[in-house]
Amino acid sequence: MTQSPQGTADLHHQVQAFYARQMQLLDAGEVEAWADTFTEDGVFSANAHPEPTKGRAAIVAGARAAREKLAATGMRHRHWLGMLDVREISENLLEVRSYALVLAIPRGGQATVHVHTTCDDELVRADDGWQVANRHVTRDDLAAELDG
Amino acid sequence: MTQSPQGTADLHHQVQAFYARQMQLLDAGEVEAWADTFTEDGVFSANAHPEPTKGRAAIVAGARAAREKLAATGMRHRHWLGMLDVREISENLLEVRSYALVLAIPRGGQATVHVHTTCDDELVRADDGWQVANRHVTRDDLAAELDG
Amino acid sequence: MTQSPQGTADLHHQVQAFYARQMQLLDAGEVEAWADTFTEDGVFSANAHPEPTKGRAAIVAGARAAREKLAATGMRHRHWLGMLDVREISENLLEVRSYALVLAIPRGGQATVHVHTTCDDELVRADDGWQVANRHVTRDDLAAELDG
Repeated sequence: MTQSPQGTADLHHQVQAFYARQMQLLDAGEVEAWADTFTEDGVFSANAHPEPTKGRAAIVAGARAAREKLAATGMRHRHWLGMLDVREISENLLEVRSYALVLAIPRGGQATVHVHTTCDDELVRADDGWQVANRHVTRDDLAAELDG
Repeated sequence: MTQSPQGTADLHHQVQAFYARQMQLLDAGEVEAWADTFTEDGVFSANAHPEPTKGRAAIVAGARAAREKLAATGMRHRHWLGMLDVREISENLLEVRSYALVLAIPRGGQATVHVHTTCDDELVRADDGWQVANRHVTRDDLAAELDG
Repeated sequence: MTQSPQGTADLHHQVQAFYARQMQLLDAGEVEAWADTFTEDGVFSANAHPEPTKGRAAIVAGARAAREKLAATGMRHRHWLGMLDVREISENLLEVRSYALVLAIPRGGQATVHVHTTCDDELVRADDGWQVANRHVTRDDLAAELDG
């Protein structure tokens, strides 16, 4: 098998740890700390959204609105990002394709699978770790073509 | 983003490998080998339990009772621990917050999500790896406050 | 706890990255590239299959047939391999036991758990990474004995 250049164990670890903290922040409703995992001019797009969200201020606002909507339902979400394909484009830029499994847990009720998505990230090196410069989330149930 | 001190790639690997073996032992019903992954005076507490279980002997007894109850139903459980946030407190002490997804698989039936939990561990260094000195498991469906 | 010899962080990373790419290829329907992750004389067996599939040509044919059957249903599958227990048998041979969780996502519909399996691999070192020489997949719902 011809393999594309991939990150080292250390890079792979950094990305895993970054995603773990990022998702735990989101799931805990710490939307500002979560938004700080994006660059100031970061872009978040998704096939479930009509348009990309551009810049950290807009990303915070979107996350807060989503959080309030979720809280009103008494539902928790838990995001698992895994199956990471990390490609080191340069010392300061990684491209990562991962799977994201979102669980929904109603208070006092049965946990279920909420959605499954594919996540394409551009990560850039910051002073103290990595940040998302560009994220595109593809909900697999909404994806048009079957191969991908 | 200001990041807390986190473990190195090697520590992260050690914890992942430890959890993989620990959960495989539990799911295979090897309760004594599983309990040996706790310290002699280890504590296991959970928001689903009325009181903490203290000491390895009590942990073995609890696990054996749970196993027999499960076996009687013809159901298998599979525990995934992931999204690890590993914090190196000292050379011999780690604090790890992770997610645990438990699947239930009835013999001849449909696998489903059983519960989703958050797991807070204190791991201490043993002669040949890590051991759990303290584990607190929060079933997300039973957690009182929504943020966390 | 007496621990068996386990792989280093670097090996663990290599196996994680290998599985991530292998599963993404399978899920994307790239059956030939996926089959190239097996050795030329690789063997794929499963408790859900009447007989082992031997050799890459047969593995490609089997994967293509499964893919066409799946595509006809408008369903996507997403394979998560995790909870890796990596044992370094020699410099060129690894034994890996992992869990595999398969999600099913209908177009326009609700994602659900499809099956949960245990995966036993023999990985051998190739020119540019690892290949599967032998894979045995145990669907947990079909497994006869309860302990394992």
